[in-house]
Amino acid sequence: MEFGITFKGFVEPNRARALVRQAENAGFSHCWFYDSHILWRESYPAMAMCMEHTQKMRFGPCVTNPNTRDWSAAASLFGSLALQSNGRFDIGLGRGDSAVRVMGKKPATLARLEEFTDVVRKLVRGDEAQYGECPNPVQFPWAVGYELPIWVAAYGPKALSSAGRVGDGLILQIAEPAICKWLGDQAIAAGKEAGRDMSNYRIMAAAPAYFGDLDTCREATRWFPAMVGNHVADIVEKYGTGREDIPASLTAYIKDRKGYDYSKHGQSDNPYLDFITDDIIEGFSVLGSPDDHIAKLHKLKAAGVTQFNIYLDNGDEEQIIAEYGKSIIPAFS
Amino acid sequence: MEFGITFKGFVEPNRARALVRQAENAGFSHCWFYDSHILWRESYPAMAMCMEHTQKMRFGPCVTNPNTRDWSAAASLFGSLALQSNGRFDIGLGRGDSAVRVMGKKPATLARLEEFTDVVRKLVRGDEAQYGECPNPVQFPWAVGYELPIWVAAYGPKALSSAGRVGDGLILQIAEPAICKWLGDQAIAAGKEAGRDMSNYRIMAAAPAYFGDLDTCREATRWFPAMVGNHVADIVEKYGTGREDIPASLTAYIKDRKGYDYSKHGQSDNPYLDFITDDIIEGFSVLGSPDDHIAKLHKLKAAGVTQFNIYLDNGDEEQIIAEYGKSIIPAFS
Amino acid sequence: MEFGITFKGFVEPNRARALVRQAENAGFSHCWFYDSHILWRESYPAMAMCMEHTQKMRFGPCVTNPNTRDWSAAASLFGSLALQSNGRFDIGLGRGDSAVRVMGKKPATLARLEEFTDVVRKLVRGDEAQYGECPNPVQFPWAVGYELPIWVAAYGPKALSSAGRVGDGLILQIAEPAICKWLGDQAIAAGKEAGRDMSNYRIMAAAPAYFGDLDTCREATRWFPAMVGNHVADIVEKYGTGREDIPASLTAYIKDRKGYDYSKHGQSDNPYLDFITDDIIEGFSVLGSPDDHIAKLHKLKAAGVTQFNIYLDNGDEEQIIAEYGKSIIPAFS
Amino acid sequence: MEFGITFKGFVEPNRARALVRQAENAGFSHCWFYDSHILWRESYPAMAMCMEHTQKMRFGPCVTNPNTRDWSAAASLFGSLALQSNGRFDIGLGRGDSAVRVMGKKPATLARLEEFTDVVRKLVRGDEAQYGECPNPVQFPWAVGYELPIWVAAYGPKALSSAGRVGDGLILQIAEPAICKWLGDQAIAAGKEAGRDMSNYRIMAAAPAYFGDLDTCREATRWFPAMVGNHVADIVEKYGTGREDIPASLTAYIKDRKGYDYSKHGQSDNPYLDFITDDIIEGFSVLGSPDDHIAKLHKLKAAGVTQFNIYLDNGDEEQIIAEYGKSIIPAFS
Repeated sequence: MEFGITFKGFVEPNRARALVRQAENAGFSHCWFYDSHILWRESYPAMAMCMEHTQKMRFGPCVTNPNTRDWSAAASLFGSLALQSNGRFDIGLGRGDSAVRVMGKKPATLARLEEFTDVVRKLVRGDEAQYGECPNPVQFPWAVGYELPIWVAAYGPKALSSAGRVGDGLILQIAEPAICKWLGDQAIAAGKEAGRDMSNYRIMAAAPAYFGDLDTCREATRWFPAMVGNHVADIVEKYGTGREDIPASLTAYIKDRKGYDYSKHGQSDNPYLDFITDDIIEGFSVLGSPDDHIAKLHKLKAAGVTQFNIYLDNGDEEQIIAEYGKSIIPAFS
Repeated sequence: MEFGITFKGFVEPNRARALVRQAENAGFSHCWFYDSHILWRESYPAMAMCMEHTQKMRFGPCVTNPNTRDWSAAASLFGSLALQSNGRFDIGLGRGDSAVRVMGKKPATLARLEEFTDVVRKLVRGDEAQYGECPNPVQFPWAVGYELPIWVAAYGPKALSSAGRVGDGLILQIAEPAICKWLGDQAIAAGKEAGRDMSNYRIMAAAPAYFGDLDTCREATRWFPAMVGNHVADIVEKYGTGREDIPASLTAYIKDRKGYDYSKHGQSDNPYLDFITDDIIEGFSVLGSPDDHIAKLHKLKAAGVTQFNIYLDNGDEEQIIAEYGKSIIPAFS
Repeated sequence: MEFGITFKGFVEPNRARALVRQAENAGFSHCWFYDSHILWRESYPAMAMCMEHTQKMRFGPCVTNPNTRDWSAAASLFGSLALQSNGRFDIGLGRGDSAVRVMGKKPATLARLEEFTDVVRKLVRGDEAQYGECPNPVQFPWAVGYELPIWVAAYGPKALSSAGRVGDGLILQIAEPAICKWLGDQAIAAGKEAGRDMSNYRIMAAAPAYFGDLDTCREATRWFPAMVGNHVADIVEKYGTGREDIPASLTAYIKDRKGYDYSKHGQSDNPYLDFITDDIIEGFSVLGSPDDHIAKLHKLKAAGVTQFNIYLDNGDEEQIIAEYGKSIIPAFS
Repeated sequence: MEFGITFKGFVEPNRARALVRQAENAGFSHCWFYDSHILWRESYPAMAMCMEHTQKMRFGPCVTNPNTRDWSAAASLFGSLALQSNGRFDIGLGRGDSAVRVMGKKPATLARLEEFTDVVRKLVRGDEAQYGECPNPVQFPWAVGYELPIWVAAYGPKALSSAGRVGDGLILQIAEPAICKWLGDQAIAAGKEAGRDMSNYRIMAAAPAYFGDLDTCREATRWFPAMVGNHVADIVEKYGTGREDIPASLTAYIKDRKGYDYSKHGQSDNPYLDFITDDIIEGFSVLGSPDDHIAKLHKLKAAGVTQFNIYLDNGDEEQIIAEYGKSIIPAFS
């Protein structure tokens, strides 16, 4: 089991410098940043900064998308970060959620997402590639053959198929074991069907972790099911609620989910949280005592999850990292 | 007189970490990076890296352009770098040269360049702005009021007017005092005409510096007049060669300048260097003994130049920085 | 009110690097290290290391003594640390406790302690000085006039007099307001009597801080009254228990205090803790909820304490620092 | 062939931070500091500082001695530096030259030097040890089994015997191949006689390196033969000048060497340089063009020298390091 943290965009730089070193020392192997350059800051300079204060930790966006940056500019950014960190750079990739919606743009199609993985991998490696907006084929003379790991965020059946066929890993923004297993299995099946060796395929469950009595925990993490609700709603829409193979924990989720305020994306004071039940909050996150965390993480591991990635959006970042370093991560090594 | 260095895109990260600290300690106040993400690496991660190894040095692209990145992504990048360095971030801005030509794209118009300065300044500061490609007005909730200094690169009369009217400084890729004065005066005049207070306006001469006997120096820096030749050719074309106010040192320049290989932009093995005379090489750069450097820099200062920015493209970076720290910079403080 | 932390000698280097940055960012102004080179590691290399990861935080031993190092070697060490941190170095000074006893040596006399402050201050400043073991007068040609702040640890009447006459500050290893006031007043009176301006005199209360219910807090910090018991026993012996001006909280302390195992100095599993009552534990440390901490610190401030220095010996270092940064330090700024 | 640099005690901290990173990047594996806490600064804080800016480079005093510090304090210092650098710490050890003479003290006997190596190795490793001044046996509970490499500086036959029997390496402050071979062979013979496997025994030649025409080089490094003259004089005295096996380059050395001003130890303006001939200057150092350096280093290598350690006392530190990184070190890898 790998452990990751995902940074809030508004963590102060000097606090971030200390947090990544603390996290690396505590046993976390990955540090992810939201890539949503309007709501928060452009995160790549922060990754570059944090790389200077760590030695083994890997960094990357969770998630970027194919529509914010020119593809060669994106690939050059990724390749540069990989190069100056001695290869400690992955990307998480989605179709584009808050980062594009807040600009009034649309998410990318899955075909475009798949093409992006191909072009970006080639360019970062040093191969020639051509893409839509650019009249000339492009090649980086400075590339050194780095193979960029790409994790694809997916919920719906087609996106899961993409993730399994073109991704090195799958990002699931939820820590509900049954749902993780059901979604992960679909990605793996798609990969196998395409003839890939899926034995090293990685599955990340990204969700908040919080310590304390359940009331406190639920209050602190209620924003999370609300935030991922739009994605889950997509699933329900795509699969239909009547299908038999859908986990009960998923169908239990929201009938009457209402609008969502993107200007408060990822914040705990996001309104429209009323429809979230206690069961949903507990199911989606990792809450309670250290023993509760360990128990839930064992279930996630059994469900095929290879990395638990903590969304550090509830404050108490230092305390959560310290507690994981002291009592949780050692239980999985 | 301020002193800056401009980094080669292919300096190894660990060497860059040492060089910026050496340069800061030697008295250099600015460190500029080429922004040409295909020929070299994306430079902003390198700036973020170098910021972690310095305390007072300012960083920025020399030069970026309005056509490589979505404007809100560019502004978020700039604002993030300013924030995590405690305000040590400027930008140099041009219409787009190698960075866009190598992709088969065209440089921006001056009107677009001017609009870019306005939109980017607003966004970085925290004001709302709207721009061409983006259907919605955009605002950064995380901005902290940073006033981004923008230096505009210009040679031709219209570009100089833009630089004087919308820039905080002017970038001249040449260290010939008479030409610098003639161009700088045009920018300042345009700014005054527009009602600006130009008393703090800054003028940078960016060029190679090299030590040794003149033969060695000329051999090492012959690439530079060739590289900026396309810009100078633009001037000649725009002003006409017959005008009387054009400095003799400029009209002496190239009749028969031939093609230019952009894949070798900024490298000393760029072909097509034959037409460059010794006088031109000496005029465009700062060459010779430490005393020769001091003498030429006094002339540049008298011509209104406020920053000498060394293009470190000839190797011997450590030696050049060390010599400037030992004998040149102290002569100007 | 200033806030400090004191490091355990056995904190892992990489953890220490993160902790000092976290602490600086949280608002702590001082970081102190035990100076006891056999029980723990030599702490000055760790201070030098931590200086590289902070910008404003001050460092120093709490406490060093005149008997471990040759005085010119000690002064050169102090002066070097001051120089490479841009003047962020103080020392705390005592007669020598665990650091010398564990070697079978004796603490220094107060006369020797006072002479040490004089010689070390002179040498660090760049003045010539001579001292017992050294046949020649010594002077540092590299000194730059740094005025080394020296805090003197004291409990008994004569040591308090030394602290007031030759110290820049007083170190009290106890956070009991009445005792702090009674001891601090004696040092200040001695300083005034000697004709010093005591308006900037500083008084540090050094003690554990712990959060949680009182049972947990007492269990975690019971070792502390035991550790400082030998010093308090000295007081009782020197003043006699019958004097009327002795605070009740002090006379309540230990009749039947037994031996003390120096090999477990500063550790929470030190035996001989039985005689410590709940009142004593609560009195000596800062325990309970954030509000309890704030209330106690206001009492310490009213008692003349200018710095609360947390002994981080109970584990949970990151959590304690984080809580102080979030809710305690802001209440005093 | 390994390459090292030795720092001047008066290099500014911020310059030192840049120099060690530059040197590590250029291929230097060791960075040594003079240990002479009165003439220069105490060097261990500077080593700790530099460790934070390097990743592979090893650090250590060149040389320390048994008479400046209490042995347990010295061992704790060494062990702490080893621990916080992940084992990147050696020591060079001599009997005590400038560091003790300037205080009016005497160098240690060879017996005391040998005992020091034994006690310090044991303590750093975590074994119990007892030594003269300390009534109790001492043990570091925090030690982690680090095996401290000790290089012994020697010239005379008895010191060479000590170096061969108790050292991990031999330090020769001279870069004259015949002398290095003659001295190194004696150390190795002594080690073999004592039954040690000397196949990994290391021999360092420590001397200035300088580039330029020979006149300039000689002028810049004339101080060096003067500085080591007292050691060479010791040899002459101990061996007698009439012996047949003494290299001609050694007997050629000084008849009428005069006094030596210790307050200018290691500085180029040390007086009493008159008796130094051109041949001696060239023989003792590594001078001339890059090709001259390479040729001389090949001779040193053939003479059994395993590390060339550059005394950076002539200014131009950055230039010398850069030139070694560019043209000399690559010729030996």
